[in-house]
Amino acid sequence: MTEQAKAARRDGRPRRKLVMSEILEQAMELFAERGYDGTTLQDVADAVGLSRPNLYNYVRSKEELLVAMVEATSQEAAATLRAVRERTDLDPAEKLRTLVRILVLQRAAHPARFRTLDRSEQSLPAEIAERHLDARRAVLAEITAVLDDGVTAGLFRPVDTRVTALSVIGMCNWVAWWFHPSPAHPAEPVADQIAENALAMVARPEGRTPDAPTPLGAAALLQQDLDYLVRLLRGEADAT
Amino acid sequence: MTEQAKAARRDGRPRRKLVMSEILEQAMELFAERGYDGTTLQDVADAVGLSRPNLYNYVRSKEELLVAMVEATSQEAAATLRAVRERTDLDPAEKLRTLVRILVLQRAAHPARFRTLDRSEQSLPAEIAERHLDARRAVLAEITAVLDDGVTAGLFRPVDTRVTALSVIGMCNWVAWWFHPSPAHPAEPVADQIAENALAMVARPEGRTPDAPTPLGAAALLQQDLDYLVRLLRGEADAT
Repeated sequence: MTEQAKAARRDGRPRRKLVMSEILEQAMELFAERGYDGTTLQDVADAVGLSRPNLYNYVRSKEELLVAMVEATSQEAAATLRAVRERTDLDPAEKLRTLVRILVLQRAAHPARFRTLDRSEQSLPAEIAERHLDARRAVLAEITAVLDDGVTAGLFRPVDTRVTALSVIGMCNWVAWWFHPSPAHPAEPVADQIAENALAMVARPEGRTPDAPTPLGAAALLQQDLDYLVRLLRGEADAT
Repeated sequence: MTEQAKAARRDGRPRRKLVMSEILEQAMELFAERGYDGTTLQDVADAVGLSRPNLYNYVRSKEELLVAMVEATSQEAAATLRAVRERTDLDPAEKLRTLVRILVLQRAAHPARFRTLDRSEQSLPAEIAERHLDARRAVLAEITAVLDDGVTAGLFRPVDTRVTALSVIGMCNWVAWWFHPSPAHPAEPVADQIAENALAMVARPEGRTPDAPTPLGAAALLQQDLDYLVRLLRGEADAT
């Protein structure tokens, strides 16, 4: 390959990604407005400003659009979350903060795409629906795993980690239902607040963290709380 | 009115409400399957097992079904939440717990209805869409008000109460996306865990003091410690 061809390829890939992203965005808007069945590839080509043959360089069918949408939304999220969960330089609290920020920022950047994908679930071809569902399950599994790690390490309260992971996902997903991207409403502060909320939701109240996540540490907590109970009961007894 | 007529009326009203609830439930399932436009009143009558003239005693058009659906779902939730927020016998923390439980239990009882309403938003006639949006705004306003009261009273952390109210709503609404009602999966423990999560999200860290310095509060701490100890011991047992 010549240097020129290499340069073109280097330039070409980001451009291809950009055009594909624009195609997806426009397709999602059309699906949202007219429904999946009411939208043609010609409509998509018109909306993006491409000729139909040119559009064919990117997608060859509406079904391919759905596959790309699922890949760019749920599957990409699942892969990113997995990479964060596997990092060894972050503790479970830092992982949870990072995961929540990623989910919120993705939904805030493409709310229409996310909602349309959700609303199209019924019309997704079985194979694509399965991939989407797998990705949703993977997102749940990653967040549940981080919560489990945090509880075991004594950083998080012993919550029902599945229901709590679904609470976290609900907080993040709902952003696509209420956030309207605009320069006046940046997504960053929203992502920060929701990440802080998720952490507060599972954090052990200060002072309740055992020194080490060992049965002995847990027993020490029990001892302290037992003393506290006795003090309260003694106070009540004294008052009567 | 005779005693008999009065008795019939007493019996009749709950029956009417029950039939109406069944009509809504079946209509929502049909809308979810076939879309609003693809569903006829005859389909609804068939699904409920009523003759079409009999169905007319309850609803006269598909639009009326949508109005009833919005009333039974978003408007009723808004009114119930308002009644809780106005109670003078509950502090903001108890109000938040009650509000979250109401929202979760409603969504857990009628997940299809809630999702279909959300998915039909685009096809709602303007006037009905406005009522639905008003009700959604009212739910947000009630929860934000309770959070504001809690922050003012020093019970809650000084969070962004709007974003945090939307976090709470997201946790509750998402239940309609993942909860499948069945005798094996009762909704109550889910509602309890999510209510606890919402409270933890906003509670001020108070060291090792429980919510209320009562023996019951101290016993709750002990319970947590015990759960934690069991978890650690189980982990050690699994590892060996």
